Amino acid sequence: MTPAVDAAAVIARLREADVRSGGRREAWGAPWAAERERLVEHARALVPGVEIERDAFANLWFVVPGRRAETLLLASHVDCVPGGGWLDGILGVHAGLGVLAALTTDGPGERTIAVADWADEEGTRFGRSLLGSSMATGQATRAEIDGLGAAAVLAEHGVVLDRLGERSPRLAHVAAALELHIEQGPILERAGRACAAVSGCLGVRRLAFALTGAAGHAGATPMADRRDPVRAAAEAIAAIGDAGEGLDGYATVGRVEAEPAIPTAIAQRCAFTVDLRHPERDRLVALERAAADAADAAAERHGCGVERRLLWEIDPIAFDSTLVERAVRATGGGAPVVSGPLHDSAALARAGIPAAMVFAPSIGGISHTRAEDTAETDLAEAIATFARLAGELAVSP
Amino acid sequence: MTPAVDAAAVIARLREADVRSGGRREAWGAPWAAERERLVEHARALVPGVEIERDAFANLWFVVPGRRAETLLLASHVDCVPGGGWLDGILGVHAGLGVLAALTTDGPGERTIAVADWADEEGTRFGRSLLGSSMATGQATRAEIDGLGAAAVLAEHGVVLDRLGERSPRLAHVAAALELHIEQGPILERAGRACAAVSGCLGVRRLAFALTGAAGHAGATPMADRRDPVRAAAEAIAAIGDAGEGLDGYATVGRVEAEPAIPTAIAQRCAFTVDLRHPERDRLVALERAAADAADAAAERHGCGVERRLLWEIDPIAFDSTLVERAVRATGGGAPVVSGPLHDSAALARAGIPAAMVFAPSIGGISHTRAEDTAETDLAEAIATFARLAGELAVSP
Repeated sequence: MTPAVDAAAVIARLREADVRSGGRREAWGAPWAAERERLVEHARALVPGVEIERDAFANLWFVVPGRRAETLLLASHVDCVPGGGWLDGILGVHAGLGVLAALTTDGPGERTIAVADWADEEGTRFGRSLLGSSMATGQATRAEIDGLGAAAVLAEHGVVLDRLGERSPRLAHVAAALELHIEQGPILERAGRACAAVSGCLGVRRLAFALTGAAGHAGATPMADRRDPVRAAAEAIAAIGDAGEGLDGYATVGRVEAEPAIPTAIAQRCAFTVDLRHPERDRLVALERAAADAADAAAERHGCGVERRLLWEIDPIAFDSTLVERAVRATGGGAPVVSGPLHDSAALARAGIPAAMVFAPSIGGISHTRAEDTAETDLAEAIATFARLAGELAVSP
Repeated sequence: MTPAVDAAAVIARLREADVRSGGRREAWGAPWAAERERLVEHARALVPGVEIERDAFANLWFVVPGRRAETLLLASHVDCVPGGGWLDGILGVHAGLGVLAALTTDGPGERTIAVADWADEEGTRFGRSLLGSSMATGQATRAEIDGLGAAAVLAEHGVVLDRLGERSPRLAHVAAALELHIEQGPILERAGRACAAVSGCLGVRRLAFALTGAAGHAGATPMADRRDPVRAAAEAIAAIGDAGEGLDGYATVGRVEAEPAIPTAIAQRCAFTVDLRHPERDRLVALERAAADAADAAAERHGCGVERRLLWEIDPIAFDSTLVERAVRATGGGAPVVSGPLHDSAALARAGIPAAMVFAPSIGGISHTRAEDTAETDLAEAIATFARLAGELAVSP
């Protein structure tokens, strides 16, 4: 059965959501919370009788029970990075609801169909990606949430802190989890593909560094006597970029800040984040080692101290091979791609839940900015393909 | 005549001011304005009959007219960098008032004696050092103030914008200007000197750079395809530090910031300030050239754009040779030092006003932080020496 998903309506919903909330849907903020209320209203209108539930980890569930408890899950996230675009995450949620509606027009089917909106996929507020899906799978523990200083804000948004470490009961019967997402990279566009199956995600090590030195007047301390944390950080960041390139991985310093940030004073401290990714675990570990060594060596050259904190890590994740094969067939047989960005599906796969993804292309490979875009014809084809794959998985194991 | 300055009372005033306003006396802020009100009250009590005036450029003047209009000026500044110490600037103002009191105990003398508190020496708010003294000498023009975006704030604090470019009338008769200040460097302490004459100031070039690239997802853009402004800035900052050292000058990046500062995204822009100093004009210019070249080269390697803006510049300044010689004699005959930090006296010298300075040592060479300190015995000796020099200049040309 190929469900008659209304791709044009899904795209229209995405446009409306973007007009309303723009790039302001950072998780745990007011525009994000408001957009989720709209999502609930929208789901009620689109899927009569849908069961709507907020689990203990602030994730939203939209469920139409089938004849069996065995569940097909279609999930992504409506949150975005500050100043983000109209597709990253929210595409998969609205496409999921559109497919749910199409699959259940004639009443419940064989399998239970669920759509989930994971809370805080982006992790910008607390520096921890995949927060909602990691809480739902019991991977984000109370100790970790406390360590991030996130407990109070999460509790305000309905997270039951005492249940962290447990699994969301809705996951118990998930037999297959699918996620439609934009690629956020240039590969599909270059290959002229409207969609592709995804075989897995790069591994990630995300670190916070701070180099600590000695403040002083910019004109009074001879260069040789300085303990300048900005100079040390600059040398470290340059070396970390080279290491990322040399090891065929990805190394990104997205945030750097000197304190106290006075143009006429040597800084006391320079903090920066490092995001490292690689498809191979061994080389990811080597890249992390290279980053730590670069910071240590630069700090030593300039008499500075080094604070290093692992913000988050995930090993490279392979999606479920059977699901990936079905996705490959559904997308026309082209080779699957590896995702650079991480996705909630990686948290599910890591927790042993069979998962796979379908990508739509990103114009110019651009994402995490307002310029993020995908041609509507490609979007429509990707949504239809996603629906076809979901239609198959709604009936067969 | 050696005026009987009460150094202990001066030190006590400095301690009181520090308890009250701490490191919060950034120019144009409320704690700074409040501290200047206290200064006015204090001067009224300490020097009966003193004329108190705020000139058209927010500078405070305390004047006891002598038999001649010819004026000996004792001036410095009460503002400090955020989180600054108890001596930088404010020492010279309180010492000046102490000396003014001592010199005029028996009524007016030969020369008119003035103490000035220059507004905004540090330049942290608008990135422009020596603002008050440069306005008073007509060197800070209306165009420059507008360019800094400072006009509205300055006008609120009494700066008459239409008079920018004119000289403060009080400067017309200044025959000699003296300033007591802490060294903010390690030279006097290493030489075991309680004070020293200062022969001039290093030249300064202060620049704002911004490298502009292309935002993108940290895991989706291959390293070779990136236009990463943080990576480019890091390479530029490292090279600028090396150039400062190689040219025997001073190069400081005190502020650096990536935007939008998301750990999981390649930044769009990375802004940083560069403060360059050198005692020789030729090598200062070479250092400025090296900094610009370093930024251009790093930007080109990473496909980034470069914005460069000169925030402020001053050539190396030599103080008045006659005054310096007298200061050398007053301080016991030791060799004069060159100041790394810039001072209001440099703005006066640049405007053709005979000026010189006396330094007290800084423990550990530390300044522009709360840890800034000088032994009270050294402070007392420096204040007494400053008073002796002022006493000579109060009577003889």
